[in-house]
Amino acid sequence: MARKDLLDIASLHREEIEFLLDRTTSCKDQFTHSVRKTTALKGKSVLMLFYEPSTRTHTSFEVAAKRLSAEVTNFNVAQSSITKGESIRETIETLQAMHTDYIVVRHGRSGLPGMIARQTKASVINAGDGAHAHPTQALLDAFTIKEKFPDPTGKKVLIIGDILHSRVARSTSTVLKKLGVEVAYLGPGTLVPKQGPENIRLFTNYEAAMAWAPDVVYLLRVQMERQDVQFFPSLREYHRIYGITSARLEEIRQRGLYIMHPGPVNRGVELCDAVMDYERSLMNNQVENGIAVRMAVLDWLTPGGDYPRPESTYASHLNTGSTLVLP
Amino acid sequence: MARKDLLDIASLHREEIEFLLDRTTSCKDQFTHSVRKTTALKGKSVLMLFYEPSTRTHTSFEVAAKRLSAEVTNFNVAQSSITKGESIRETIETLQAMHTDYIVVRHGRSGLPGMIARQTKASVINAGDGAHAHPTQALLDAFTIKEKFPDPTGKKVLIIGDILHSRVARSTSTVLKKLGVEVAYLGPGTLVPKQGPENIRLFTNYEAAMAWAPDVVYLLRVQMERQDVQFFPSLREYHRIYGITSARLEEIRQRGLYIMHPGPVNRGVELCDAVMDYERSLMNNQVENGIAVRMAVLDWLTPGGDYPRPESTYASHLNTGSTLVLP
Amino acid sequence: MARKDLLDIASLHREEIEFLLDRTTSCKDQFTHSVRKTTALKGKSVLMLFYEPSTRTHTSFEVAAKRLSAEVTNFNVAQSSITKGESIRETIETLQAMHTDYIVVRHGRSGLPGMIARQTKASVINAGDGAHAHPTQALLDAFTIKEKFPDPTGKKVLIIGDILHSRVARSTSTVLKKLGVEVAYLGPGTLVPKQGPENIRLFTNYEAAMAWAPDVVYLLRVQMERQDVQFFPSLREYHRIYGITSARLEEIRQRGLYIMHPGPVNRGVELCDAVMDYERSLMNNQVENGIAVRMAVLDWLTPGGDYPRPESTYASHLNTGSTLVLP
Repeated sequence: MARKDLLDIASLHREEIEFLLDRTTSCKDQFTHSVRKTTALKGKSVLMLFYEPSTRTHTSFEVAAKRLSAEVTNFNVAQSSITKGESIRETIETLQAMHTDYIVVRHGRSGLPGMIARQTKASVINAGDGAHAHPTQALLDAFTIKEKFPDPTGKKVLIIGDILHSRVARSTSTVLKKLGVEVAYLGPGTLVPKQGPENIRLFTNYEAAMAWAPDVVYLLRVQMERQDVQFFPSLREYHRIYGITSARLEEIRQRGLYIMHPGPVNRGVELCDAVMDYERSLMNNQVENGIAVRMAVLDWLTPGGDYPRPESTYASHLNTGSTLVLP
Repeated sequence: MARKDLLDIASLHREEIEFLLDRTTSCKDQFTHSVRKTTALKGKSVLMLFYEPSTRTHTSFEVAAKRLSAEVTNFNVAQSSITKGESIRETIETLQAMHTDYIVVRHGRSGLPGMIARQTKASVINAGDGAHAHPTQALLDAFTIKEKFPDPTGKKVLIIGDILHSRVARSTSTVLKKLGVEVAYLGPGTLVPKQGPENIRLFTNYEAAMAWAPDVVYLLRVQMERQDVQFFPSLREYHRIYGITSARLEEIRQRGLYIMHPGPVNRGVELCDAVMDYERSLMNNQVENGIAVRMAVLDWLTPGGDYPRPESTYASHLNTGSTLVLP
Repeated sequence: MARKDLLDIASLHREEIEFLLDRTTSCKDQFTHSVRKTTALKGKSVLMLFYEPSTRTHTSFEVAAKRLSAEVTNFNVAQSSITKGESIRETIETLQAMHTDYIVVRHGRSGLPGMIARQTKASVINAGDGAHAHPTQALLDAFTIKEKFPDPTGKKVLIIGDILHSRVARSTSTVLKKLGVEVAYLGPGTLVPKQGPENIRLFTNYEAAMAWAPDVVYLLRVQMERQDVQFFPSLREYHRIYGITSARLEEIRQRGLYIMHPGPVNRGVELCDAVMDYERSLMNNQVENGIAVRMAVLDWLTPGGDYPRPESTYASHLNTGSTLVLP
């Protein structure tokens, strides 16, 4: 049942997801209570390969790996040296030659973690690749929801934001659907897919989406650096139309809905300040569960698989681009 | 007798300071001699949260923590993401959710470590906050002085430089006074408090200060980045008026005085080059003792205290500003 | 037979080199197979002091040290604080005061690792200093060649590129000659020494060099940042005259020659893309052997030697400059 890599959610069986979420429970118990460190990964090496900056995902993986007694090394990549397709292959071969056991990789190009996985014996964990996938975020989101709804079948989660370019939207909706959760997307027409994937409702109007009666409202982070927001006259306008304003928070409170966000929050854009004190905000639970789920994933994967000789057509892998192929 | 946090010197009892300095002796013995590593903090996690760059304080804490077998993780903060008051609270909640045992924090705003301490169960160690405090620097300074003067009561330490904006001046003078040492400040009129704190002599003239007959001359680092030096026509002028010139070093040598400096030195500004070869310069002792004192502090603190729900008025905490409230 | 430091290749005896290469064999076996971690350096601290950026050498040393259970700390040096000669001495004294066991140093100035070695008890490993030396690169190159030619006496290695400014050319040719390998240099007249060292053939023409019948073709990296390439009208021209073009690769394949490169490769400059699939390219072997040889070096050195008081004439050490004094 063990796998070598965790590249996306789509290829996981429901049984694997449930197994991982069960393991997360015991990892969380260990992590937040008495036993602070186990020797599960003693002698194993974890290489952090982050081409996009990330404070919390990076730290979360690092803390998780160290809790399991792994050795963590940062491979300080200069964005410049990887821009040309050719050099990616050299980097991958270098990683393979270093005999690291795990590679945790984040990169702006969809499919890069998969390329590395096919060409190294290391266990590769995708920590976010372009608009493709962010599987550990999805698993921590699922775990956080299951803590509130132990049987989540039929529960409804509304995901709000730039759906089209979001790996979080993609991976989290995929894991939720596998667990029987109903998912809907809400966002501006330019940032929501024209043709929805099977079983996902599409909304462009907040009130219409709320009439769908969600149990959880999940806000995506506006990627300022990607200028998603260019579709809007201003961030203020975005907040008014798709953000959780004070008035909307009041309605959410009265209906008893949960609020989630992958963090970090752009205050006054996705969420008004008062959400920080909302008792059904699950953002801190998400951070806490993030470490536990990453411990479970590291412990579950088994490095050392066979790796084929690199194929000659690297360019074709790299040109999958960053458009969302819906799950 | 144990505490959760080390935020400043002012709130420590003399007994606590003496206990810590005693522990430093055995940590130094361990650190510089045979036993290179203990398991005192085995399974504990230390998170380094440095918003201001620092090579030696950062390295010193990291080496100290690893000597005690703790796991050290750097939380790579982008200065940009913390500029707005709101996001500080999110960062603090994230740290709390990560269940780290210790947080070592340096930040330009006075009071930030205290904010974190009140809102997390982690033991928070202030590694320098604005012009407020730098308690481990103060303890290592005190330890260094006690190595030369086992009973420091009545000994005299002259602190020279930009007193008004210096957390080192504040914390070091506080610890010294608690140990019975007499302290005086020397600096330009614009950089020395108008109204001195109890029991601290104020000088603006070097010769007058030397006539006070100090045993130790402690030079503060000129903070080029803070443009302290704007009060002067030039660095050369600063050196001439408040620096240890060759001629002054000769007098210091003849009187057998010790020289201290928290490092790194601006050569030709605070000190002339020849001080490097002065046999009573204690700068290297300060570096060495820095690791030992940080080991003692980490070992002394006890993580896991209760933490109250965050208060709603963060802004008020943050506006304590950076003016020196003398101890 | 043990030494305190590894500063260059020139001062090593042949017996020491062979001892190190033997140890590398067992380190490689441990590193690539069953036993993943030993306690050889348990309780020892390694300080990484990199003034020049480096991804693979830095990572390689870090992984090697952790495999031996050492504690690794990065001393984050700002290039700015070390530009003035005076502050180098303060940095060295700080390192000494920190009682680290090993210092791995890379710096643009020839001779700096030697200065540190003379003034600290730590074992200093030169990870590249100016145009002077890069001894661990040389040892891994020698080990890689010996894996293919167990008795390398009389084998021929052709080193191509900017010989004059290359610490790799210098150290690798030195170690190879000590092992009885014949070495030749090929490069533009401006980048090859006018007067060759003893026993090294000099070429400026590719065809002439190939007529010398080398067994291994070793390409140096073109240092874009050093503008070595200013000697050429263009990189394309460099590739045509001194690079391994497709046509030249075909000849190399037919003659069964090995290709080496210290990495990372500038594709289309030193090497055409097709070299990645060439079965006698040893670049990945070099990366793999790099970790093993660094484990062997760390294990071999013995920290704790006496250190003299610093001499007063630092400037003279620093002005050795960056011109190649051939071995």
